[in-house]
Amino acid sequence: MIAEILSVGTELLMGQVLNTNAQFLSRRLAALGVTVRHQTVVGDNGQRLREACRTALERADVVITTGGLGPTLDDITKRVVAELAGQALVLRPEAEEMVREQLAKRGCPVTEACLAQAMFTPDSLLLDNPNGTAPGAIVPMGGGRVVIHLPGPPEEMKPMFRDQVEPWLQERSGRVLVSRYLRIFGMGEAAVDARLRDLEEGGNPTLSPYCSLGEVQLRATAAADTEAEALALLEPLLAEIRARLGDVVYDVREDEDGGLAVSCVAALRRRGWTVATCESLTGGLIAATLVEVPGASEVVRGGLVTYQSVAKTLLADVPPELIERCDVVSAEVACAMAEGARRKLGVDIAVSATGLAGPGGGTPERPVGTVFLGLSTAGGTRAIPLHLTGNRARIRTLTMKHALNAVRCEAEGRSGAAEEKRLN
Amino acid sequence: MIAEILSVGTELLMGQVLNTNAQFLSRRLAALGVTVRHQTVVGDNGQRLREACRTALERADVVITTGGLGPTLDDITKRVVAELAGQALVLRPEAEEMVREQLAKRGCPVTEACLAQAMFTPDSLLLDNPNGTAPGAIVPMGGGRVVIHLPGPPEEMKPMFRDQVEPWLQERSGRVLVSRYLRIFGMGEAAVDARLRDLEEGGNPTLSPYCSLGEVQLRATAAADTEAEALALLEPLLAEIRARLGDVVYDVREDEDGGLAVSCVAALRRRGWTVATCESLTGGLIAATLVEVPGASEVVRGGLVTYQSVAKTLLADVPPELIERCDVVSAEVACAMAEGARRKLGVDIAVSATGLAGPGGGTPERPVGTVFLGLSTAGGTRAIPLHLTGNRARIRTLTMKHALNAVRCEAEGRSGAAEEKRLN
Repeated sequence: MIAEILSVGTELLMGQVLNTNAQFLSRRLAALGVTVRHQTVVGDNGQRLREACRTALERADVVITTGGLGPTLDDITKRVVAELAGQALVLRPEAEEMVREQLAKRGCPVTEACLAQAMFTPDSLLLDNPNGTAPGAIVPMGGGRVVIHLPGPPEEMKPMFRDQVEPWLQERSGRVLVSRYLRIFGMGEAAVDARLRDLEEGGNPTLSPYCSLGEVQLRATAAADTEAEALALLEPLLAEIRARLGDVVYDVREDEDGGLAVSCVAALRRRGWTVATCESLTGGLIAATLVEVPGASEVVRGGLVTYQSVAKTLLADVPPELIERCDVVSAEVACAMAEGARRKLGVDIAVSATGLAGPGGGTPERPVGTVFLGLSTAGGTRAIPLHLTGNRARIRTLTMKHALNAVRCEAEGRSGAAEEKRLN
Repeated sequence: MIAEILSVGTELLMGQVLNTNAQFLSRRLAALGVTVRHQTVVGDNGQRLREACRTALERADVVITTGGLGPTLDDITKRVVAELAGQALVLRPEAEEMVREQLAKRGCPVTEACLAQAMFTPDSLLLDNPNGTAPGAIVPMGGGRVVIHLPGPPEEMKPMFRDQVEPWLQERSGRVLVSRYLRIFGMGEAAVDARLRDLEEGGNPTLSPYCSLGEVQLRATAAADTEAEALALLEPLLAEIRARLGDVVYDVREDEDGGLAVSCVAALRRRGWTVATCESLTGGLIAATLVEVPGASEVVRGGLVTYQSVAKTLLADVPPELIERCDVVSAEVACAMAEGARRKLGVDIAVSATGLAGPGGGTPERPVGTVFLGLSTAGGTRAIPLHLTGNRARIRTLTMKHALNAVRCEAEGRSGAAEEKRLN
């Protein structure tokens, strides 16, 4: 099955909005085994939309539009597609019900313009929109092809696609697809790729890497007639990946959620530990990222942001002589910061970070990117040196990720030495 | 002048990479007065790239490609375009120089594959790439049309476009375009739009809104024969916008940088104030955002992350009885947190935030989204209540932005009462 993504909206062509919809849809379609060969963006212009849609239908089985379903005059997507289908838009009572329900929920009056959102071709399969007023639809275009209309706002589009379009596509393909997502930290994309290249070339299951700063995520997808058969195909592959990559695989999930903070909070919870932070160059980023995880309040007690040197002394009791003697960016100061935070907040584990994020301030002995983490528990305190590269934002984000990973490893009782090595 | 953006890369079609390049280019081109009618994405496939490029050249004067300039076999963009131009790729000595210099800087060996990056058609205008090994080029395609090749990685593409392509486009248009960027906080997109609609319809200068969470940015662009004439067109428009919107316009700049944190740090610096934070629901986000601003270390002393209630007492000396009596989400506790942080860190101003980010924990009296900021200076301490809506991430981000704005207003000595009203 071949799909094309057709995003509609002048705001995209003006660069006013980032097209995250195209990435989301491409990613989900890839996991469904659907091939995407083109993504196209056009504005709210009838003629150009018609041309783009006609071209897309010549080269794809499924054309997915986002945007242009709303009540204003420049919302023309449905009309243009209905014309191509040779059908008229009619007021569909089920759709009218949906629109009225959403308007009532929002306390908005029912206007004629609003009801235009309930107009579809007679044979369109309607898609409910629990997060907005414009329903979507799957529109038959003849010859087995369809156009799928989705709303533009991502918070409306994503659940509609996931909950209603994905099951429809799955059913249509006649195959069951099962995916697992592996999360990796501490090994770069190239190294992961070098170790798994032969596995990535297999036809079923497929294996695709997705990278973000310092992290690699692998999607493994198997297609079969039943879920059990698909899982039976997946399991040996997952075991092989784990055998080849080792401990850097920190999570294997059925969904794309998760991340270092989620795994860190989960590890702390399993261990029954509370955590605190003491942050210099990250300025609160480690704590703020932990707190993003729902349920973090059970384990995250709080933290200290010790940005200026004097704050390290005022808040974490780091002796000024120590800072003077060892430099503020040093293993000794990182340890003192972690110990201070653990004591002040009375937690089981504290993590600290001090370093040079740049752009200025580097010296030959301590170049920009020199960072020390401190890790303090009842069992002792130690520093983890990091040698990072890149700009200010990159160095701070990587420091945060290394800190979360270090806390996770410690809470899991894993060998610190091995981790320290890998962390660099 | 009409431009089309053609992004090349199978990783985009798989959703492995978010196409931020298309937004960046669209935005910059809009500011240059260049119309973009299509954005297209194709994979590393010769036939489909050829078709997409041919189609683009039929409808645009300038086709901008991103990606596919590297040394690997699937980097085919230049070859496909050279074929369409009816020319051969030849090793261009100036380009070879560029490639060798970048390889030497990175300590990489000079291989034949690497030198493929120096192959261009004989009449291509070369574009230097100070941040990567692949040079770009402006390729004449006949009939006054050009294809502009840019590298895929944004950190290489953006400076190349800004520093080399923009001046070329400006010169070609024969007009001088001058833009100013107005940053707005405390008034929604719809309200801004309602007040400025007639101004947005003017032909020269043009006025375009760009929105992000809780903020509106306006770009005003004037075209004229000289910079002075363009500025003379812009100035009355800027004055009119300020008159209509008032204090919510917090910055007017020549570039797109800036933001609430930048303005907040600048205001603190002008006032000669140091700042500290005390954060509950934001968990360090306010401090971390301040610290993103280069030079923040002069004014940002540090902060307290008081996530669990006990941390509010341990770190900010908030009396447990006060929390018990008033609730942890209350004006009283927000004030006590701000006072505690100001005292502990010995700063001129401290800001605190306590609130319900959800999803759970709401009551009829204190629904999710109830937030109190505390603001403490030598002149006194007061609370600012916020009633926010949306999910956890949204509520926390909006809280952070309101806090930065409150500190900025206070440092600027503006009337608190007016701000408080607007903040809600």
